[in-house]
Amino acid sequence: MKTWEKNIRKIVPYVPGEQPNFPGMIKLNTNENPYPPAPGVQKAIREFQKDKLRLYPDPTSHILVKALADYYKLEENQVFVGVGSDDVLATAFMTFFNSHKPVLFPDITYSFYDVWSELFRIPYERPALDDNFRIKKEDYYRENGGIVIANPNAPTSVYEEVDLIRDILEHNQDSIVIVDEAYIDFGGTSSLELIKEFDNLFVVQTFSKSRSMAGMRIGYAMGNPVLIKAINDVKYSYNSYTMNQTSLYYGVEAVKDGAYFKECLGKIIKTREWVMDKLKELGFTFPDSKANFIFAAHETIPAEGIFTALKVQNIFVRYFNKPRIDNYIRITIGTDGEMERLVKALEQIIKSKGQAL
Amino acid sequence: MKTWEKNIRKIVPYVPGEQPNFPGMIKLNTNENPYPPAPGVQKAIREFQKDKLRLYPDPTSHILVKALADYYKLEENQVFVGVGSDDVLATAFMTFFNSHKPVLFPDITYSFYDVWSELFRIPYERPALDDNFRIKKEDYYRENGGIVIANPNAPTSVYEEVDLIRDILEHNQDSIVIVDEAYIDFGGTSSLELIKEFDNLFVVQTFSKSRSMAGMRIGYAMGNPVLIKAINDVKYSYNSYTMNQTSLYYGVEAVKDGAYFKECLGKIIKTREWVMDKLKELGFTFPDSKANFIFAAHETIPAEGIFTALKVQNIFVRYFNKPRIDNYIRITIGTDGEMERLVKALEQIIKSKGQAL
Repeated sequence: MKTWEKNIRKIVPYVPGEQPNFPGMIKLNTNENPYPPAPGVQKAIREFQKDKLRLYPDPTSHILVKALADYYKLEENQVFVGVGSDDVLATAFMTFFNSHKPVLFPDITYSFYDVWSELFRIPYERPALDDNFRIKKEDYYRENGGIVIANPNAPTSVYEEVDLIRDILEHNQDSIVIVDEAYIDFGGTSSLELIKEFDNLFVVQTFSKSRSMAGMRIGYAMGNPVLIKAINDVKYSYNSYTMNQTSLYYGVEAVKDGAYFKECLGKIIKTREWVMDKLKELGFTFPDSKANFIFAAHETIPAEGIFTALKVQNIFVRYFNKPRIDNYIRITIGTDGEMERLVKALEQIIKSKGQAL
Repeated sequence: MKTWEKNIRKIVPYVPGEQPNFPGMIKLNTNENPYPPAPGVQKAIREFQKDKLRLYPDPTSHILVKALADYYKLEENQVFVGVGSDDVLATAFMTFFNSHKPVLFPDITYSFYDVWSELFRIPYERPALDDNFRIKKEDYYRENGGIVIANPNAPTSVYEEVDLIRDILEHNQDSIVIVDEAYIDFGGTSSLELIKEFDNLFVVQTFSKSRSMAGMRIGYAMGNPVLIKAINDVKYSYNSYTMNQTSLYYGVEAVKDGAYFKECLGKIIKTREWVMDKLKELGFTFPDSKANFIFAAHETIPAEGIFTALKVQNIFVRYFNKPRIDNYIRITIGTDGEMERLVKALEQIIKSKGQAL
């Protein structure tokens, strides 16, 4: 190893999920929305003037921040935007978690939290969820350098009531609590209502799931102005112009159309409910989902085998080869047509009792 | 101050340059290109399918990396892309500068280098440029944790020959040398040719200036595959999907059109040369510029006064109230029409001998 190589930051590289893209495949592996973004976005694309591209975007992302503040009835200084909720969360870790005490998050949760902690050299501990993948709130009644709760949780789909978040906040007035609500719009209640009461609460959401904009990379956070100013200071000191012109203009249109938003959510929730019924009939068990995916284990056939058998049929779901969850597959809710094909494929796999695996 | 506030990262917030935007103004303050991006970009905008927005972009940014590799005759594993060269450079600082020795960069240079060093707690020292704003290469003949050279330099516009970069590399085999070439296309020769010889050289460029795409936030770096893999590992561990779908598709079109690219550069260089002549006539002194801006001081009128007097006329240039450069204004090269208006305004200001200031 050369001398200069010794000063390279050591990190176990995060491997992003595969993004296959070919005709006829069914992509249920990264929790994308099966419906396109709001009609206004199409209009914004058509009307976009290329001359805008030669100019720097507004570093404050004002039009997008304002659209979000209007939608959620907040002040503009309570809203932060970033390049997907991953950018928002990574910047929040760097901004808020500078104590020597460990940051706490569950043993089973979004797989980036420990990666960011390693990257920024933040100590962390991971209290175990119970056997039903639920949070034991008492685990968070101790000194810490911060808390991160995904609600609904990924990849389990388990939703915790706002009362649990409130309880954790009441026991943690000395550290910042991040609630990652990437999937909140699919049936849960946001903890946003608590930001008036708790100035150490930082609520993160995204355009990638409920707003059909994974491809645009838009995430946002809401909290009291002290938190928002602190994360903006770090953002401006890292990259002043993170949101490009298209993100700003297309993003605003996605926020404005509340009716289309609710219509798509309604369709996805309806599809999810009948898919859960079907999966039960087929011998799957899973937590009740309040997300746009189902986290399911089969009573007899190992998850990895189902994952592979589906892949052979060009149906992509997600499998995590990790302790406690290695017998589960995570299935994104697609269109009714896609889910019918999935259910048919699963029937076939189960009928053959995994013999072909 | 509440307890949780104590764990917020302390940083003197970077204040991005103003981005005024109103009809009739002349914007010569952030080194944007006065010409729109290549015609193919307009076509890509028109033909962009909104359904692409619901899907995650390719985390490897393959089409854009390939377009750049083809253009520069490199392998794909020698190219990295990010959200503007600020994102590329910030990630490079985090990836490459993890020694306890100081990173070296000139006292007068791009104002983000010290901000990133502070943000990531990297020790640094700033050898002084000579009186003509030139690098004294001997200052870089000592132990260090890395070196950063902007070439041409910002905000001075001074270009150093590749031989100087080679000399610094020959004296620094044990640390990583970043050459920030944001302005290289306006008349300099890139150090890119040296990456075959020096595996510790990391060359950074951007679409923001010469490719008329400041609004899209696309930067890139070129170096040996070990460096590119290391920075990709950090990028994947921070935010796997940094480049949105529009950046990828519009970006490819901007790279492909070499003829349009050269045509715009030729126009800007031609404009720069006559503006330099005019400024000389008006009593300005400045280093010979190989960038798309001129860094000029007037023999009698203080720079801040000129800056303010131009602003009153809706002509925006940049003024840095910093040691050694507080008598200079930085003027971006716009269209011939814009520069004629600028010259006329300067004539007026000088004629009034700054009385109105």
